[in-house]
Amino acid sequence: MNVKYGIAKAGIKPSGDYDILIVKFPESVYSLYLTQNSLAAAPVIYDRMVSQLNDTVEAFVVNSGNANAATGEKGFENAQKMAELVAEEFDIDKDQVLVFSTGVIGVQLPMNKVEKGIKQAVQNMKELDIKQASKAIMTTDSFPKYYQTKGEIEGKEFFIKGIAKGAGMIHPNMATMLAFIFTDVKIDKETLDKATKLVVERTFNSIDVDGCESTNDSVLFVATGDSEVEINQENKVYFAKKLYEVCLELAKMIVKDGEGATKLIQINVHQAQDKEEAKFIAESIALSNLFKTAMFGNDPNWGRILSAIGQTHLDIDFSKVKLFLGDFLLYSGEPVEFDRKEATNYMKNNKEITVDIYLERGEEDWTYYTCDLTYKYVEINAEYTT
Amino acid sequence: MNVKYGIAKAGIKPSGDYDILIVKFPESVYSLYLTQNSLAAAPVIYDRMVSQLNDTVEAFVVNSGNANAATGEKGFENAQKMAELVAEEFDIDKDQVLVFSTGVIGVQLPMNKVEKGIKQAVQNMKELDIKQASKAIMTTDSFPKYYQTKGEIEGKEFFIKGIAKGAGMIHPNMATMLAFIFTDVKIDKETLDKATKLVVERTFNSIDVDGCESTNDSVLFVATGDSEVEINQENKVYFAKKLYEVCLELAKMIVKDGEGATKLIQINVHQAQDKEEAKFIAESIALSNLFKTAMFGNDPNWGRILSAIGQTHLDIDFSKVKLFLGDFLLYSGEPVEFDRKEATNYMKNNKEITVDIYLERGEEDWTYYTCDLTYKYVEINAEYTT
Repeated sequence: MNVKYGIAKAGIKPSGDYDILIVKFPESVYSLYLTQNSLAAAPVIYDRMVSQLNDTVEAFVVNSGNANAATGEKGFENAQKMAELVAEEFDIDKDQVLVFSTGVIGVQLPMNKVEKGIKQAVQNMKELDIKQASKAIMTTDSFPKYYQTKGEIEGKEFFIKGIAKGAGMIHPNMATMLAFIFTDVKIDKETLDKATKLVVERTFNSIDVDGCESTNDSVLFVATGDSEVEINQENKVYFAKKLYEVCLELAKMIVKDGEGATKLIQINVHQAQDKEEAKFIAESIALSNLFKTAMFGNDPNWGRILSAIGQTHLDIDFSKVKLFLGDFLLYSGEPVEFDRKEATNYMKNNKEITVDIYLERGEEDWTYYTCDLTYKYVEINAEYTT
Repeated sequence: MNVKYGIAKAGIKPSGDYDILIVKFPESVYSLYLTQNSLAAAPVIYDRMVSQLNDTVEAFVVNSGNANAATGEKGFENAQKMAELVAEEFDIDKDQVLVFSTGVIGVQLPMNKVEKGIKQAVQNMKELDIKQASKAIMTTDSFPKYYQTKGEIEGKEFFIKGIAKGAGMIHPNMATMLAFIFTDVKIDKETLDKATKLVVERTFNSIDVDGCESTNDSVLFVATGDSEVEINQENKVYFAKKLYEVCLELAKMIVKDGEGATKLIQINVHQAQDKEEAKFIAESIALSNLFKTAMFGNDPNWGRILSAIGQTHLDIDFSKVKLFLGDFLLYSGEPVEFDRKEATNYMKNNKEITVDIYLERGEEDWTYYTCDLTYKYVEINAEYTT
């Protein structure tokens, strides 16, 4: 996989850790997903424009420690300047460079530091090491997030490697979440777009930490085409499945690392009329503070789950609904007897909890990942800038 | 005001406190607002049916300690039985009795206790004492919620008296919130409906504690007509303003008593294109866990406020937005210098905080009330049933 990376400690993060990442690859097709938040950060606005002009990309730069959001015209100029600096270093067109930022909102980038950091990172470009690269994009993350897999088509191997960051402001339509996924397959933009759209919807757009959508969320897929594997009508489903594997692992890491989280909770909604409904219901549960605190308290409080389903205002017939917590049936059209002590023990003894809802309305399902709401979440977020 | 009440300790609440309230009045016009949650509790389903059949009401009964929600057919029968028991005692038609419940979800009502409680409460009916009556409907409330005012029209006095309960599961379209408001004016149902709809939208439907809408939310307005004041075209605005005063005070008490809350936060959105937009934006801020934790941490974190506005996905021009925290201008099209220490002190030293957003898009405004998200909220809700 012909992907090179360079990192630098530019001094944007007060901690002095790595805060600049540059990734360089041959002219590649790509798919890009950006936040829907109307307070889009400067780099998001910049990338949105560039991506409408170009179907290929050759490099991108990420800074952590400063989101370059709510920074007005000056912020936009700075995002553009970052692209220019990188383009100059590699002697490529500046429209071939994407820009990403994450960190504090509302502070202008220290451009002298950024410039030095970019020059420094470019000095020492190496074969992509996803562990090292993922460290340079961390903010409140407690661990670096990276994952890779390989696939085989007609005896030829291909790779998919991904890195991500994110722990707070995590909510669908993404979050202060950045994810970069690389593959060496040959694929046309239309097929890549279709495959990634499907995958993003089921992974990065089906996770929640705190219901708060960010200004900087971005997911980038780059297909360099330097393997011998060509994605076509025959094998595209297999490729999408492999992509899904990588994105799901990265997305779950973000939820596991959710600020203050002690549990990863998987909510499976079954037998919905359509996918949208299944997702809407799963999301309503995932977002409920009462559900999230009950999970923290190891409380098999199915009333809060049903009530969160009801908050969708859909005409659910609750006399047909079944609700499982792990293997425990808690509700089956009416409250059922269950071993409360055992159910509580299941919650106490597992870091990954599943909730299964059967609606008996149709055949569609959706899975959503969330975490519990804890004292630590309040602590982290009550004391972020002070 | 010809309104009588009776209370009883029926033993539904484990604490042994008052848990039955009966209120009796002459055949009166009324307006009733019930939860939109599709997991509507049995009494809500019952009241919804009864209120479609009758334009008048003569009594209602409330039990606390058990929500009679997610209780199926049996639950509905029990709600109906409560109405019948009260109707028998007063020798009135059972369709003239409304039923309300609040408390734990998913447990059948102990009907022998309920029956005894109703008989006991009826034994000792007295002139309405809103302080005493409000105590009988409390659940997790830390203080009883009641308020009264009087008005004068053409030299004649009228009264409005209200009681409410609620501290958690508080979210628009109401919450585990009950409110009962009585007035002695003469008014036709259509005018009462119009006035109360307006008022409910700006009060009980503009408060949030935890984003969680409940299965039992109900607001009832009763107009007994036993004063000499007649509400007509001329004075209806004055009457609505008085009603608003009572409902706003009760709604604010609910937010102040929000589980674990240390602050009441008033969010005023100004200069929106229309009322819906103003409310949508105010609500997005009020619901943000990141905003609510920042308020708890006395952190003037305007980035989280702007980001919550952006989460509406409206095409806001942030270069025109102004944001005040109390008297401190924090953002004016771009980040502005402000005295962070003084702003933090303002938050530390006040139990009521205001946030003002100016959008420069139009002339409509909306006010929303919310509270902070604290360790105590997590504690209360992680340990509710265990």
